[in-house]
Parts: sequence; structure tokens; C-alpha cells
Amino acid sequence: MVGYKFMGKAHSHAYKDVGMFFDLNADVVMKAICGRDENGVKAAADKFGWESYETDWRKMVARDDIDMVDINAPSDAHKEIALAAIAAGKHVFCEKPLALNLSDAREMLDAAEKAGVKHGVCFNYRFLPAVQLAKQIIEEGRLGEIHHYRATYLQDWLVDPNSPLAWRLKKEVAGSGAHGDLNAHCIDLARFLVGEFDRVIGHSRTFVKERPIPASSSGLSGNGGSEKGEVTVDDATAFLAEFKNGAMGTFIATRFATGRKNGNTFEIHGSKGSIRWDLENLNNLEVYFREDEPNLAGFRTISVTDSSHKYAGNWWPAGHIIGYEHGFVHIVYEFVQHMTGGSGFAPSFRDGVKCQEVLEAVDLSIERGSWVGVDEV
Amino acid sequence: MVGYKFMGKAHSHAYKDVGMFFDLNADVVMKAICGRDENGVKAAADKFGWESYETDWRKMVARDDIDMVDINAPSDAHKEIALAAIAAGKHVFCEKPLALNLSDAREMLDAAEKAGVKHGVCFNYRFLPAVQLAKQIIEEGRLGEIHHYRATYLQDWLVDPNSPLAWRLKKEVAGSGAHGDLNAHCIDLARFLVGEFDRVIGHSRTFVKERPIPASSSGLSGNGGSEKGEVTVDDATAFLAEFKNGAMGTFIATRFATGRKNGNTFEIHGSKGSIRWDLENLNNLEVYFREDEPNLAGFRTISVTDSSHKYAGNWWPAGHIIGYEHGFVHIVYEFVQHMTGGSGFAPSFRDGVKCQEVLEAVDLSIERGSWVGVDEV
Amino acid sequence: MVGYKFMGKAHSHAYKDVGMFFDLNADVVMKAICGRDENGVKAAADKFGWESYETDWRKMVARDDIDMVDINAPSDAHKEIALAAIAAGKHVFCEKPLALNLSDAREMLDAAEKAGVKHGVCFNYRFLPAVQLAKQIIEEGRLGEIHHYRATYLQDWLVDPNSPLAWRLKKEVAGSGAHGDLNAHCIDLARFLVGEFDRVIGHSRTFVKERPIPASSSGLSGNGGSEKGEVTVDDATAFLAEFKNGAMGTFIATRFATGRKNGNTFEIHGSKGSIRWDLENLNNLEVYFREDEPNLAGFRTISVTDSSHKYAGNWWPAGHIIGYEHGFVHIVYEFVQHMTGGSGFAPSFRDGVKCQEVLEAVDLSIERGSWVGVDEV
Amino acid sequence: MVGYKFMGKAHSHAYKDVGMFFDLNADVVMKAICGRDENGVKAAADKFGWESYETDWRKMVARDDIDMVDINAPSDAHKEIALAAIAAGKHVFCEKPLALNLSDAREMLDAAEKAGVKHGVCFNYRFLPAVQLAKQIIEEGRLGEIHHYRATYLQDWLVDPNSPLAWRLKKEVAGSGAHGDLNAHCIDLARFLVGEFDRVIGHSRTFVKERPIPASSSGLSGNGGSEKGEVTVDDATAFLAEFKNGAMGTFIATRFATGRKNGNTFEIHGSKGSIRWDLENLNNLEVYFREDEPNLAGFRTISVTDSSHKYAGNWWPAGHIIGYEHGFVHIVYEFVQHMTGGSGFAPSFRDGVKCQEVLEAVDLSIERGSWVGVDEV
Repeated sequence: MVGYKFMGKAHSHAYKDVGMFFDLNADVVMKAICGRDENGVKAAADKFGWESYETDWRKMVARDDIDMVDINAPSDAHKEIALAAIAAGKHVFCEKPLALNLSDAREMLDAAEKAGVKHGVCFNYRFLPAVQLAKQIIEEGRLGEIHHYRATYLQDWLVDPNSPLAWRLKKEVAGSGAHGDLNAHCIDLARFLVGEFDRVIGHSRTFVKERPIPASSSGLSGNGGSEKGEVTVDDATAFLAEFKNGAMGTFIATRFATGRKNGNTFEIHGSKGSIRWDLENLNNLEVYFREDEPNLAGFRTISVTDSSHKYAGNWWPAGHIIGYEHGFVHIVYEFVQHMTGGSGFAPSFRDGVKCQEVLEAVDLSIERGSWVGVDEV
Repeated sequence: MVGYKFMGKAHSHAYKDVGMFFDLNADVVMKAICGRDENGVKAAADKFGWESYETDWRKMVARDDIDMVDINAPSDAHKEIALAAIAAGKHVFCEKPLALNLSDAREMLDAAEKAGVKHGVCFNYRFLPAVQLAKQIIEEGRLGEIHHYRATYLQDWLVDPNSPLAWRLKKEVAGSGAHGDLNAHCIDLARFLVGEFDRVIGHSRTFVKERPIPASSSGLSGNGGSEKGEVTVDDATAFLAEFKNGAMGTFIATRFATGRKNGNTFEIHGSKGSIRWDLENLNNLEVYFREDEPNLAGFRTISVTDSSHKYAGNWWPAGHIIGYEHGFVHIVYEFVQHMTGGSGFAPSFRDGVKCQEVLEAVDLSIERGSWVGVDEV
Repeated sequence: MVGYKFMGKAHSHAYKDVGMFFDLNADVVMKAICGRDENGVKAAADKFGWESYETDWRKMVARDDIDMVDINAPSDAHKEIALAAIAAGKHVFCEKPLALNLSDAREMLDAAEKAGVKHGVCFNYRFLPAVQLAKQIIEEGRLGEIHHYRATYLQDWLVDPNSPLAWRLKKEVAGSGAHGDLNAHCIDLARFLVGEFDRVIGHSRTFVKERPIPASSSGLSGNGGSEKGEVTVDDATAFLAEFKNGAMGTFIATRFATGRKNGNTFEIHGSKGSIRWDLENLNNLEVYFREDEPNLAGFRTISVTDSSHKYAGNWWPAGHIIGYEHGFVHIVYEFVQHMTGGSGFAPSFRDGVKCQEVLEAVDLSIERGSWVGVDEV
Repeated sequence: MVGYKFMGKAHSHAYKDVGMFFDLNADVVMKAICGRDENGVKAAADKFGWESYETDWRKMVARDDIDMVDINAPSDAHKEIALAAIAAGKHVFCEKPLALNLSDAREMLDAAEKAGVKHGVCFNYRFLPAVQLAKQIIEEGRLGEIHHYRATYLQDWLVDPNSPLAWRLKKEVAGSGAHGDLNAHCIDLARFLVGEFDRVIGHSRTFVKERPIPASSSGLSGNGGSEKGEVTVDDATAFLAEFKNGAMGTFIATRFATGRKNGNTFEIHGSKGSIRWDLENLNNLEVYFREDEPNLAGFRTISVTDSSHKYAGNWWPAGHIIGYEHGFVHIVYEFVQHMTGGSGFAPSFRDGVKCQEVLEAVDLSIERGSWVGVDEV
């Protein structure tokens, strides 16, 4: 595994726990974690339960005892590592966004397909029980024809103008801001739930254009944040969308939604019913059916915690909620099963590419000030 | 009508508006309002739209042009006015609690029945659309056998120890505190929804035992609130109940529920479903049915605002909510129809008596420290 | 007053009740109501409490005993009636949208200003206590710089494809569909709360293109709805907006939001705090302040029902909620005070024009497929 | 560790993960798990990550390589195992309720204290961030004097009368039903948050008196559930309480609250503020402060997920919620720190005894039909 910060911790936890709660075709062995800072990665290996560590991902990728590489390094490193891992015949599981841009993403997909390795992108939210239930309801036709899809991804960690200029705020490392980080999730969920995008138009803002440069994270020097640097990604991006099935979509991702911490939500209206969901309350799904008796119709708040719900039965009895990290356990479970003889797996690199297409179509629409077809990019 | 303060305003409004939204058997004519303070009652008559006013209720009760007397004076005056009105052959509609104590209430019931006049008690909450829907669901057997009834009535206007010693805090005028004022509503709703009480046990508290005596409301003297007087009613009363049908009940009424303004709530669990409701959100009813598909069962939040709901169709289109005072319009509508040839009407004085029985059984249980059967009082 | 259906009822109620709950500079006398169908308007006059009725608005406008004309006829009649009333020197209060198009709206504004009569548009939602509180918080600077404004107006009464082709679905009568009917409210609230629009881009859909022609409402013939006619307005319109102050906006109005009855909502994020509100729960406002202690910050659910809140003190004690129609009472109160010597009044026809500008800029953006500056129309 | 079913899994998970998210004084080594069924316990040992397994707890208790024994066997086995473990000088961590009855619980406490071993009871809910915040707010005096405490523990897994006669429904194994299982948690939280109980009075019900005897869980025979056996514990128990500090309490635990899955809630009203919480939404705490500006006071919904909240910083960024099992990780963290040199630990066996006192006082009050002082038992 490459990367040991936020995502590194979430992924490590998933590998550690998946075998305890799920029956796998094969055991997961946590061979090696990789990071550039030796002290940091050594500590992480110990803490998270990896057998060994590497400071050069090339070495890790070359190891014979490793079947699969999990990439959760910053976005600008995804492509090079993935291509090397694929070349070495490893299965590859990669954090989103798949790459810094669409052409890189396509190159990665091509390489993986040609090499015949298994590939996946970590759109972890697909694998929460509430989202699985939403998918099932829609596939069974119980919402009817879909008319509206509205999504938000609301965070507020950048509202403070003195919040430092982290790597996520530099275009050359992160590729994008709220758009690539947050809208990527919303786009993937929309594709998963209601289908492909037709055309989009958006706008974006960088509300705070300069931020303090953080002191060196290794703590050696004391430049203390008095200098400022330019923020080169968006703080917020919103867009309108039209889906190929005729539905209208509204999307907004922002890191300036004061008071909203992790508001990844969707609300879907169809001709027969509606669904809504909020990641901060991820154990509930709200569903409305027009077919209910008129005086008894209302949004039902369904606790997706009993064993009638996918994955929920592997955890605790009804009403004993699960948390954010459980989505990673589920996606890792599915990917491991896929690697070891299971049927198909999505989201694959193809889904990573498709998501990137929409992201870039939005970027292009912002540049042009007019609608852009997703097939144009 | 006797009384022109909070309840006087709510009742006046009901008489004024009922004909606009409902089709009545006969027109409502607002003949006269009565109060002891001439300036006050004159102003109220003008403001509220009464044709005339009286300062002596005996005169009003004697007037030939009046068919019905509405009593919303302080509780200690209910009995005398009601008996006089009944003696004069008027129909009587009385605020709750019906009387200061059970024997007075029974006397009023007897008098009304013997005289053959129509009589009603203003348990207005029965007539909200959500409560009507709850009633219908239960009567149709859709909750099955009732196991649990939990009610609260949570207010906080006495939390401030400097809140003055109003008439509602004096036993000789009000009869009771939170118990008679608020639990009375909860008891009536419970009787309406799940049936008669079997036995009860309670406890109560007066958290603040002395409060400033308010300056004379006529403004003549200036004793200014520096003197304190004793609070002689309860600030809060809670009790356990067993219903004749075997259900368990929990009730609490308090004026010390900091932050809760008018939290008249109930939650009912039956063998087939559950219901919950909160007066502060009175346009919604939450309902759960076990018969729903297991993975789609959840509390439904039903907006009782469309024309499939009782009374709602007389107001506005779906989703256009109504408020607190609408319950008075509905109860007045039902009582006027009852007086003018409609079928029966409940809550009658009989319901006032039944409610009083439970209130007094609770009081007796507090005295004794043990369970008291409602049939004992 | 012209019109006696849904809005006619809501306005009549306001005139009837306003004097009971508010102290006015002058008494309101309900002189005459006007409608084309004599039986219908006669019944409405009786029911709603108007002294007389007219079947020709020209007659009503000409009457000497009338000081103010309230226009809530279908939108295509607004202009002609308003201009005649203004010419007759009457004050004019008009339902939204002010006119079928911007040039008509501007003509009405010009006429009213030249004649020096008082003029108002019935954007009633401004006058709900929660919206007043939102305004106050923003004006005091407690949200800081505004970054985001998101509004929805979600109804579902057209989801059923057999719902008839009402006048609201014909462009020549209604001017517009969800956009003019619902987005008009959202645009006005946005202008009221965060300021003027800079540019917009939208899209819209008519999901059901043909609907049954309703049988004659007079019930004479029996054409029974078997014929279908074309829907010539939008079922849903969404748009992105940029405000002059730099804030990003997202708006959606739809009559196809299955399960949502009257979901007029806004959520505003500023550099210091956030606000959100939903008309279906209109007695609450949710507010977040960044300045709260970090571990105690959270959205506060404020019950705007006590006397510290504008208009609330004129009704009931804390926690006793008000309903949809109260907004009309408040706006009528303000307009009557304005007519009789009060200071200014907004929303005036000028606000009606400003709203129309945004509506038309959105329409133009849909035609062009690119952003349109509000100053361009 | 003794036991490998629901609690066995939750505890095992805690030992497995605690070192990954918390810095411990010493490493946790998962030595051995114990159960009577060899196949079952062997599989659990593999799955959960224990080094070895035992089928006789006496052997496990005797092993030299074990420092601490975790008892989550059925309640009737707690005492014997605990006493043996204490005798062997092991630290003991025991599931609640501590014992089948008060005298057993006291014996266990005495033994542990005399032996000088560390002892704890698994009241895991104390260790959720929201509960920790509630504790802190109360300790800082920000609720003022406490007037009301209301608790519920609402489940519905027994509403179906065909639900089998599990061990939890037999008095000789479980000791008690909803009371000992669920009220135990509520009592502990109440003691933790507002202090000691003074006196109580309760009632209880067994709604379904006979249930199908489950087929042998080893699957050997096929008695198939056609026979019925008697339920010897309560389905629901409610009680009123008075606290030593004068507060009034209301408690209800039930397994018949249709639609409520795990509704462990409390609401606390003090002279300066209020708090409420629900386990099914455990990442939020709702708090009201009277000291807020009057027109801005409201319950705040605090997301206890950022690093300003206890334990939260060890997991994920703000808004990334945690689940039910995290409480076990936290309590295990605290107990391990306590064993290895940390300061004190509560809840200890003393808290287990105190909880048992209240449980038994309630039972006695049910028997007597009158109030029972907790000091009497």
C-alpha cells in the first residue's frame, strides 16, 4: 500500500478488519506499506499492522510477495505508480480521483485492461448499506422514471482564511479542489444510481486566494506560516447536469459550507417515488412511495442496520449503527473477492475514467461559459 | 363568552373564522364577551369582533339573544358560571380543566345532563388533523394491540425563578399546576386514542417555592414585585399508568423543561405499528407499520396537509401548514354542528369528568406513595 | 379585491383577521370582491365576509368607496387591472408574478410611480418570523461575507400524468410554470436576504407534455377529460446564479418532486455562520455561528414563536405555532400601515420588476445555452 | 476472553483495533478466547484473531500468560468466572449486568477489592464522544441545577410472538429481561451524568408469555420450535425515580417498541440548559443554553466528530461518523491504560453494584406497589 495518512489509515483499517466480519475467498495478508518519510512510514506500519515498510514505491511494486497494490498517495503520483504496478502484473486498487486529468486516467485504464490485471477505484460510498438500498429500489423500478437528481458535498474546513495552504490546495499536486475531491464522489454516486451524464454547465470560486504556507511538516525549520502562497484550486464548484435518461441534475461541492462537516447528500425524485440520503447520517435512508395509501404516504426513515440490508448483517444487530470507515471494509471485501475468483467489480478504472470525463466537462464549461457535452471531452 | 385573555382570544378567533372555512348548519353570531375589567373587555370586544360586552357574567347568562355560553375564565369560576348557564337553558362549552375538583366536575355533568343542554370541554388537540389520523389508524386496528403509550407536555416558562406568581400558580384559583393544565391534555388524548385508565402512580415537584408577587395588574399601586409569595401548585408532575386494555403508560408534564416550549408529544407502540407526534410540529404524524416490507419499513413522516386528511381540505393545498389556533376552529365547528342538529359530540362534560378522575387519582397516589385505581376516586 | 380562489381566500382571511391581532392606523373595511362567475363570487363574498361583490372589475375599480385594490386574478389579468386601478388613484396590492413579462411589469411600475399611489407585490414569505430573523442576522453581519445561497421550491402536484391541464399550465394565462410561480418566490427571498443577482444560467423541462383538458368547471357539459391539450409551461426550472456580492447561488423549482409538498427552502453559508429554513416547518430557523465555542458549535433550531420574534408576539405564547396564512396577515398589516402613514414598504412593484428581470434572464439563458447578465434584459 | 457471540465479537474487535487508533502504555496481545462449543470457539478464535482457544474457562483463568480476563458469557456465569479469575490474580473486565443479583454483585466487588486486582464493568456507552461531552457540560455547571432526567431504551425484536425463547428470556440465565439488559445501561448513564438515585417505583409487563422453544442450536435434533416455553423475564419495565439531588427521573426499557431498534435516549433539563441524545444517532448531541440571546436560543445539534471532542480525534476528520462498536474500543482503551499505570477507572465493579441496587429497588417496588428507597436494598 502506498500512502499512510488519512486514506492510508482508512484503507489499512479495512484490510485489518475485513476478515473478521466477512468470509473471504482468501486471507488478506498486510505485506507492506510505503511512504517517503522513513520514520513516519515505519511508525504507521507498526501501528496499522503491516508486516514491513518501504520508502521507495518502486521497490514495493517489485516485490514478489505482493499481489495487489493499493494507491492512496497524493493524486499526482497515482499514474506513475499504477502503471508500474500494472507492468509488474499486480492488481491495482486506487484512490479517487483516478488521475490528475482525463488523458492520464485513460492511459491507466488501457494499461490495466491490456495487462489483464484487476483494477478498482475507491469510490467507497457506493458500498454503504443505504446506498446499496437506494440502488436496489431504483433498479427494481420503484422510483419510476427519474426526473431529478440533486447532490451536495458540503464541508467547511477552509472557511478560516488562516487555514494553511495544504497540498490539497495546489493544482499541480491535487489536480483540483472541491471539484475533484468532492464532486468526484457525487458524480460517481449519480452514475451508479441514475446513469450516464449527457451535458453539464458549471461555475466555481476560490473565495480565499492566498493562504499561509505551512511550516515544514517534518518540524525541522520554523518558517511559521507568515508567508502566504496562492491557492490554485477551486474552493467550490457547482454545476447543472442533464442525464442521458432525461433527468435534471444539480451538484455542488464546497469547502466553505460553514457548519456542514461532511454533507455528502443526494435527493432523487422519480415518477413513482423519491429517495434522500446524507452521509453524516449514513445509517438511514429516506424513501417515499407514491403507491402508498394517499393519507399514509410520507418519507420513511429506514434504519439500514438489520440483516435485511446488504453488509449490515455482517456487523451488529438492528439499530447498532456503523460508521464512515465501514464503507472501506465493504469495498475492500468486494475487491478481494473479485481478485480471488468473484464475479465482476465496479467501480473499476473505467468508472474512474467516466467520472473524470464529467469533471473535465464541467471544467471546460466553466472556461467556455456554456454547456459542454460529456462526449466532447 | 366569558374570559378575554389567552383563551378568550383563541376562542374568539375560532368563532370569527369558522364560517369562512367550514359549512355550518347555522351562522355563528358573536353576541357578547364578558370580563370583570370594563376597559379591558370593551377593548377586547372591539378587537375580537363581539357585538357587545358585559362585566357581570350573570347578566350575560341571562340574555335571551344568547344560545351558547363559552367559559374560558380562570378555573375556579367554571362551575358557578356553568351551572347558571345550564339553569338558563344555554348550551355550554367550557375550557379545561372542567372544574377545580372531581366533585364539582361531576355536579356540572349532572346538571348539564338533567337540563338536556349540549355540553363540551375544550380539549382542542383532539381536532388537529394529525391526531384525527392517529385515531383513525388505531381504530382500524392498524397498530394492533397497544403495548405502550408515552406522553410528555414540556414547557419552560417557569425556569426563571423571577417569573412572577401568576394566578396559574395559586391552587385556589388554578386548582393545580402543570398537572391540571398540561397533563389534562395528555390524559384526554390518551383516553381518546387508546382508552380508559386503570391505575396510576405519580410524583411531583415544586422546584421554585416562592416567587415575586406581581404588581397589581391595574397599575394602581407600586408594590413592584419585591415581595414574594408561595407557589401552591406543582411545577412538574410525572406518573406511570396502566390502561384497562393492558397498555403501559408514562406521562410527564412540566414547566421546567428548559428549551422545550410546547412539547405536547405522544408515542404509541402496538403489536403491528407505532405512531408519534409533537404539537410543535403539528402538521406531521410519524407512523410505522410492521407489515411493510422488512427492508423498507421505517417511520413515515406524513404531512397531514392535503385533502385526504380531516379538516385539512378546508384550509390550503398540500404542504401549506396550519397552526395552533386551527384546533379551536375545528372544535368550535364540531360543537356548533352538534348544537344545530349534528350527531354526537365528544369531548363532553363526561370526558371532562373522566379526565378529572385520572388527575385526582394521580394526586391521591402522590399522597399515598402507592398505586391508586382510577375507579377508587 | 379581484379573484376569489386559492389566493382570494388567503387574502380575504388576512383582511378579516389583521385587525384582531395587530393595531392598525386605520380600520380595514372589506368593501367588495370581484369575479367573473356571479354565483361563485357571490358565495365567496358571503363566506369570506365582503360587504358586496362585482362581476366586472372595471366597476369595482371605479367605486368611490374603495381606496385599495388587491389583485389576485390569474397573471394575464394583472396588468390591465392594475393600470386601471392606478388610473383611478387606488393603491394597488398585486399577487406575484407582477406581470406576464418584464416590459409589462415595468409599465406597471412606471404608472404607479407617476400616479403616486402606494404599490406592493405579495411576496408573502418575507413576512414570516423566521425569514425576518434570517434577515436581521444577515444585516447585523453575523453570517459575515456570504459565499453560498441554495434555494429549492419543491412541489409534486403534477407528478401524476393524468392531473388536468389547469390554467397554471398554459403560457398565455400563467406566463410561466414552476419558474414564474415558484422560482419567483425564491428569487425574491434571495434578493431580500443576500442582494442583487449578477448573472444566471438555467435549464428547464416539461416532463409531461400533454394533459387531459378539464371538463368545464361550471359542470354544464361532460367532455370529461378524454381530450388532451399541450402543456406550454415548464414543469421544472433550475439555474445557477452569481450575485453581485460574489456569492454563488443554486435554484430549483419543480412540480415533480415526488413526496415534497411545499418545500420552499433556503440554505445560506457565510464566512461567520449559516442559516437554513424550510417553509413546511416555517416556525423554525436553523442557525450556525462559527464564533460559538468549537466543541459546542452546531446548528441551532430556533423556534421563532416567542415575543422576541417579529410578529410572533401578536399571536400566541412560545411554542404555539402559526401557519402558512399568517404570512398574508403580516404583509397586509405592513401594507395597510404603509397606506395609512407608515414609513416605506417593500416588496413594491420595483421588487416585482427586479424579480421579473431575473426570471427572464434565466429564460434567455435557457434559449442561448450560456450565461446571461441580469442587466442585459 | 470468555464468550464469543455478539458481545464476544464486539469485545474482540475492540482489542484488535485499539492499538491502531490509540497510543497505549502497553501492547494488547489477544491470548485466548473461551467457549463451550469447540467448533464454535475455534472458528471464532481464527476469525477474530485470538492466538488460542479454550473450552473450559477454568483452564483459561489458570494460564500464566494471561493478565486480564474479559467476561462476556451469559449473566449467570459472571460470578463464578470472575471470582476464579480474581483468585488467580487476574484483572477482570465484565459485561453488564455484573451479576444475577445484588448479593452476587457485592461478593464480586469485595473479592476484587480484597485481591487488589483492577476491575471494570462494560458500560460502554459512557465512552461515546457525545456522552463525554454531556458529562463535561454538566460538570462545568452549564446546565445549572438538574430538574429532569428522562431515559428510554426502546427495541422491538420481541414484538413478533413467534420470536423464539432465547436465553435472554429465561430468568435463571439472564436474571432479568428488558430491565436488566436495557435499564441497566440507562441507570448507569443517569448515575454517570446526574448522580445517585434516591427512590424508585416501577411496573413491568410480559406481553407474550409463551414463545416457541428454539431447535437445538447445535442442529442435532429437530424439535423445530413447535413446542412452547414460558417467558420468565419482563418484556418491558418502566419506573419513576427521584435522585438525591432532587431531580425527577422517568425510565422505560422495552423490547416491544415497534419500529424503534436501539433507542437508548436521554433528555436532561437543568435550570440553565438542556441536553438530549439518541444512540441511533450517536454522533450528535443536542444542547440548549438559556444564556444564549433570547431570539437566538435553540437546541444546537453538535456533531461530536471533530478533534475538539474526546476520542473523536483518534478516528477521522470532522463529519466522518463513528459507529456503535467504537464505544467498546474506547472503554477497552481506558481499561488497558488503567491496568498499565493509568489513573483511576470507572465504571468499576462498584458501579456495577450501584446499578444493581437500583435495578433491584425497582423490582422490589413492583412487588410492593409502592416506592422503595435505593438504600433499602
